[in-house]
Amino acid sequence: MNVFVIGVGLIGGSMALDMKAMDDAVLIFGIDHNPVHLDEALELGVIDQKATLEELEKADVVIVSIPVDATVQVLPKVLDAVHDNAIVFEVGSTKQNICSAVEDHPKRRNFLAAHPIAGTEFSGPKAAIKDLFRGKTNIICEVEKTAFKLQERALKIFTDLGMRIRYMDPKSHDKHIAYVSHLSHISSFMLGKTVIEKEKNERDIFDMAGSGFESTVRLAKSSPAMWAPIFEQNKENVIETLDEYINNLEEFKQLMLQDNFRAIYQEMENTNHIKEILNGIIINT
Amino acid sequence: MNVFVIGVGLIGGSMALDMKAMDDAVLIFGIDHNPVHLDEALELGVIDQKATLEELEKADVVIVSIPVDATVQVLPKVLDAVHDNAIVFEVGSTKQNICSAVEDHPKRRNFLAAHPIAGTEFSGPKAAIKDLFRGKTNIICEVEKTAFKLQERALKIFTDLGMRIRYMDPKSHDKHIAYVSHLSHISSFMLGKTVIEKEKNERDIFDMAGSGFESTVRLAKSSPAMWAPIFEQNKENVIETLDEYINNLEEFKQLMLQDNFRAIYQEMENTNHIKEILNGIIINT
Repeated sequence: MNVFVIGVGLIGGSMALDMKAMDDAVLIFGIDHNPVHLDEALELGVIDQKATLEELEKADVVIVSIPVDATVQVLPKVLDAVHDNAIVFEVGSTKQNICSAVEDHPKRRNFLAAHPIAGTEFSGPKAAIKDLFRGKTNIICEVEKTAFKLQERALKIFTDLGMRIRYMDPKSHDKHIAYVSHLSHISSFMLGKTVIEKEKNERDIFDMAGSGFESTVRLAKSSPAMWAPIFEQNKENVIETLDEYINNLEEFKQLMLQDNFRAIYQEMENTNHIKEILNGIIINT
Repeated sequence: MNVFVIGVGLIGGSMALDMKAMDDAVLIFGIDHNPVHLDEALELGVIDQKATLEELEKADVVIVSIPVDATVQVLPKVLDAVHDNAIVFEVGSTKQNICSAVEDHPKRRNFLAAHPIAGTEFSGPKAAIKDLFRGKTNIICEVEKTAFKLQERALKIFTDLGMRIRYMDPKSHDKHIAYVSHLSHISSFMLGKTVIEKEKNERDIFDMAGSGFESTVRLAKSSPAMWAPIFEQNKENVIETLDEYINNLEEFKQLMLQDNFRAIYQEMENTNHIKEILNGIIINT
């Protein structure tokens, strides 16, 4: 089985590693606009050989794992190039723009929109790891628009990788993911910015920051090339969540200014409920 | 050595566990306003026996590990009760109010203000764990006001627990810790609140939230009884950090409204610098 991975980074690279390990018949072709990454992917054994978009007609499976703005550009060309029995899926963090970009494509039935909720704050082929997807959720959008036989091939891959499948429409996906993923990244980036701006003498940060700080700013290590396009493509939902977040912070500040620490206690106690939600995540993933 | 732990929770309990393990001559007396916690601490072997404030004259070491508002109330009484050779230290997350509360106390020289930068989001005696402090920073304030012999006894304990010592004045401590600890807790609590408010149907959170969300809201599990008094005692510094954080979020939102995703990319790239800072934390701790 010829598997083309377009974008040999964290997600595409990790999928390639698992697929190769599972099936000797899998041959991984890597395509990347960054020649250094492509060389690294080959050296690390993430891919079996380098390839170009011109070779896509050989593909049985194409994984498009590049920033969402690039996906919108590249995906129609990929569909143009593949043969009628190829399945093309992408793994981006937004779904509406991507699904719209190919809705009228003659090979729409060769495409499946997926979002594996898996990843780390790292990127590039060196970030690719085995078993990244085991126990994680994979959200699939507009499954009914994909040819049944090709759905099957993609779902077998996802199941083999260990993922739980959830189906959702692109609009709902983008709305909910803004809350549980996109907003976390902004809160983390801006927290990092606030502290870096203030603490010019960084030794103070080194010495006084503990695991709590580390946990809340971890996502501020994420790749801007990946995240700026996500915020752009999910602009309306992200602005809505950001508005609500800023309002909640402003209210918290007002309570402090009013010395209403009883209300602040109550706010925190109500939000402690997140414990059960997080337990849910841990149990489920 | 008779060690009295006032507040047999995460910090006091974890110190008790390590001190007992290090020295057979250590006898841990537990004091807590919550009788259930005191029973649990005894059952779990965190303390050797229950005690009351009336027995403090027997103490060689007193660890005050209770919420910072209670510390301000209890600390002068503890100093009243101990003998002249006892060392009393507290471990709170604010320092100015606590140091002020005992600055004119006749037994000021028996007191040492400390802040071990260690902890988890959990609380109570069940949260107490061994080796919590190894490799962590302990910030000591106004060391010169503590009797030299008693400084030595406290520092030996901290060193035995594996902590690195840093000295700082209470005002600087409270200012910096607002940035690298207190603000993280507010950002996390308000992020949790924003998502819970929005996602009434929690299955959507369970299924779509990944490790990034979990990391950023982890601190929202923290104890309100511990944190409301911290915010109250460090009100001015916390409001300042919160103002800057809200301004940064507001600016980010404005850039999005202006479709200036180039500037957003730049913001994120600048903040990626947090990687090196976090590496510093990991290396140092």
